Amino acid sequence: MERIYARHLPSHVGEEIRIAGWMHNLRRLGKFAFLLLRDASGIAQVIVDSPDQLKILNDVQDESVLAIDGKVVAEKNAPSGFEIHNPRITVLSPVNEVVPFPINKSVLNVNLDTFLDNASFGLRHPQKQATFRLSAALMKGFRAYLSNNGFIEITSPKIVESATESGANVFKLDYFGRNAYLAQSPQFYKQIMVGVFERVFEVAPVFRAEPHSTTRHLNEYVSLDVELGFVKDHTTVMALLGELIGAMLTHLSEHCSRELSLVEAKMPQAPDTFPSIYFPDAQTLILERHGEDCSNEPDLTPQHERWLADWALETYKSDFLFVTGYPMSKRPFYTHPNPADPRYANGFDLLFRGLELVTGGQRLHRYEDYERALRERNLPLEPFAGYLQAFKFGMPPHGGFAIGLERFLMQLLGTHNLRETTLFPRDMNRLSP
Amino acid sequence: MERIYARHLPSHVGEEIRIAGWMHNLRRLGKFAFLLLRDASGIAQVIVDSPDQLKILNDVQDESVLAIDGKVVAEKNAPSGFEIHNPRITVLSPVNEVVPFPINKSVLNVNLDTFLDNASFGLRHPQKQATFRLSAALMKGFRAYLSNNGFIEITSPKIVESATESGANVFKLDYFGRNAYLAQSPQFYKQIMVGVFERVFEVAPVFRAEPHSTTRHLNEYVSLDVELGFVKDHTTVMALLGELIGAMLTHLSEHCSRELSLVEAKMPQAPDTFPSIYFPDAQTLILERHGEDCSNEPDLTPQHERWLADWALETYKSDFLFVTGYPMSKRPFYTHPNPADPRYANGFDLLFRGLELVTGGQRLHRYEDYERALRERNLPLEPFAGYLQAFKFGMPPHGGFAIGLERFLMQLLGTHNLRETTLFPRDMNRLSP
Repeated sequence: MERIYARHLPSHVGEEIRIAGWMHNLRRLGKFAFLLLRDASGIAQVIVDSPDQLKILNDVQDESVLAIDGKVVAEKNAPSGFEIHNPRITVLSPVNEVVPFPINKSVLNVNLDTFLDNASFGLRHPQKQATFRLSAALMKGFRAYLSNNGFIEITSPKIVESATESGANVFKLDYFGRNAYLAQSPQFYKQIMVGVFERVFEVAPVFRAEPHSTTRHLNEYVSLDVELGFVKDHTTVMALLGELIGAMLTHLSEHCSRELSLVEAKMPQAPDTFPSIYFPDAQTLILERHGEDCSNEPDLTPQHERWLADWALETYKSDFLFVTGYPMSKRPFYTHPNPADPRYANGFDLLFRGLELVTGGQRLHRYEDYERALRERNLPLEPFAGYLQAFKFGMPPHGGFAIGLERFLMQLLGTHNLRETTLFPRDMNRLSP
Repeated sequence: MERIYARHLPSHVGEEIRIAGWMHNLRRLGKFAFLLLRDASGIAQVIVDSPDQLKILNDVQDESVLAIDGKVVAEKNAPSGFEIHNPRITVLSPVNEVVPFPINKSVLNVNLDTFLDNASFGLRHPQKQATFRLSAALMKGFRAYLSNNGFIEITSPKIVESATESGANVFKLDYFGRNAYLAQSPQFYKQIMVGVFERVFEVAPVFRAEPHSTTRHLNEYVSLDVELGFVKDHTTVMALLGELIGAMLTHLSEHCSRELSLVEAKMPQAPDTFPSIYFPDAQTLILERHGEDCSNEPDLTPQHERWLADWALETYKSDFLFVTGYPMSKRPFYTHPNPADPRYANGFDLLFRGLELVTGGQRLHRYEDYERALRERNLPLEPFAGYLQAFKFGMPPHGGFAIGLERFLMQLLGTHNLRETTLFPRDMNRLSP
């Protein structure tokens, strides 16, 4: 018999059907038992009351994989309003061990390290399922918006000959006896490809060998990268980013209401145009509102970012805030300066609920500017030859940005650790599963 | 003035517009010149006849980035039927050097190594653009079909603690003083995630440290991975794969006719159900048709695959052919044997125009079977603990496959080297650009 999904029971009332999935819970009540069967679509309640069927269940633990033939009955006291009567159970894969921790309570109550050690099992919890369905939906919304706006997807190599942005924090690799590195970002490749397609994006892992352990950093993550040509300056890029984020959130609202409600996500306040503040003005604001003089600092601290976020929420009812014009000294060599004040960059960070979610900006596009920028930073040209060739042969004004997928999800869900929104996180101490 | 794309000229006849792009070609004819301007959408012809505008062009080479204001005129002798008159040219990025090789002829005539050394520039050739638009479209068609059929996208780690399938051919990495490896495939993770979502896919780079150089292998490529639960056996997987390939080809036909024609691709003959032959029968067929006795061999040679492909094309008018039931000795430890004859696997290769495009099959799903399979191959259990946990806690019968993106495109286009269908290929000798 063809199997149906648990969520389709309502359209089969009175029919004999087959469902299949994992034994989510078994509650014995004397001569019968309530069995909850979980599949990819949801959970179905099964009433087991025949002695031989109850006997089958004596030998299996939670998470056993079962196929169950039976009759669909409408029952207003059942969790979904429907249940299966007269079941005939086939055990497809018996489980003999007791599970490491329960995944059949509505909230998962387990220490994070224990969870991560047992991720292969724990990810089956309905809230975890919902989390990573949202992750998939964010990628889908990202690609859909960009494809509809003339962007072409690219796939750039992750094994590279030289470090992307600087020599620090790259993983080194033995490549047939030579040194190679894992790409910290597709930055060079997405810029090169602007010369081919004008507008490109990539969804791919990036690797950062940062030797510190925080809740906001991992050593491997998924970067949602975008780059586009023929921009006026960084403001063209910011406008696109704002629309893209809006489209991704709309995609979630339209397609993932069940998942959003399962994880109790609070959708962000996102005005059509995100507010924006110039870096020196942000420092002035921090002095005025919080009495802290940070005017000599080249960057914002996490506390500064949270203060600015509070201000944006109060003033603009926005969970998103652009900070533009960071000092050039803290930005990578390909950053385009502000022509009116070259101490500051034509770049931006986008804060989401007080945490940096996106970094982006306008890039240099003239070959001579790259020569100068590399020289000023005492970097050699030769390792960048393949990249610089694109500029030697004509590149339009362009810019782009990168969104951290797991970080977006973390801020959306209000969790406080990237390890909660990464399937199999990698940090200094964790390499498995 | 807002810029328009070259392909939109027909809807602006008689209007003053701005176009922008790369100087694809300049042909001077005495007092005027034909300038071809290339943008992401196509090529526009511009008639330059004023002395001051011609003077601007004296100082720039092909590939200079220009913005051109002018009037759109219908002209039946122009390549697209339309051209720009009375142009005012702004040079956005001048090119001063002569290009490494011409990219303004309809066919790119350059040695492959020279092309790859200059990929940042050469990829702008219209045929190359078309090639990689087709690559993007293949990914889009892949994801669209799977999303519409209940599959969830996952992102698995590429830095792993132990080799995926065997110790051979993995790239080794220094991970904060420990050894780590680059994932050869997302195999373990996609199987684990069948326990969560039942149906999953991933589009991501994989890494193979194979120390040989062929036209059909690269050391990094994009793998289109699929895994699904609650299968009958490998035939469920094959049926899905056949439909998926059909959907991807339909996506190309519907959305990429311009690109397919630019690269002169011959769309494959793909019947609704792909023909299939059992491995021992394939050996018999080879003996009968070609007089070669390979009945003691555990695998097919490339020549065998081409012979089988010829047979499938003659007999079934199909460019695709499944070969099922390879000997278990040549398949990885997680392969499910044929219950009726355990010497052979419940697995398959899919040949496309005589080359293996996909490998897949049913996997073991019971914990005890994994214990036995690893023991029989003298492999320890411990490095696989995080993976095996999924089977300890209930996994349904499942299977899946992986399609090589660049290989699919290579066979579709009839090129004979993966380096032609990979943006920035990685092989033993090539690490840049």
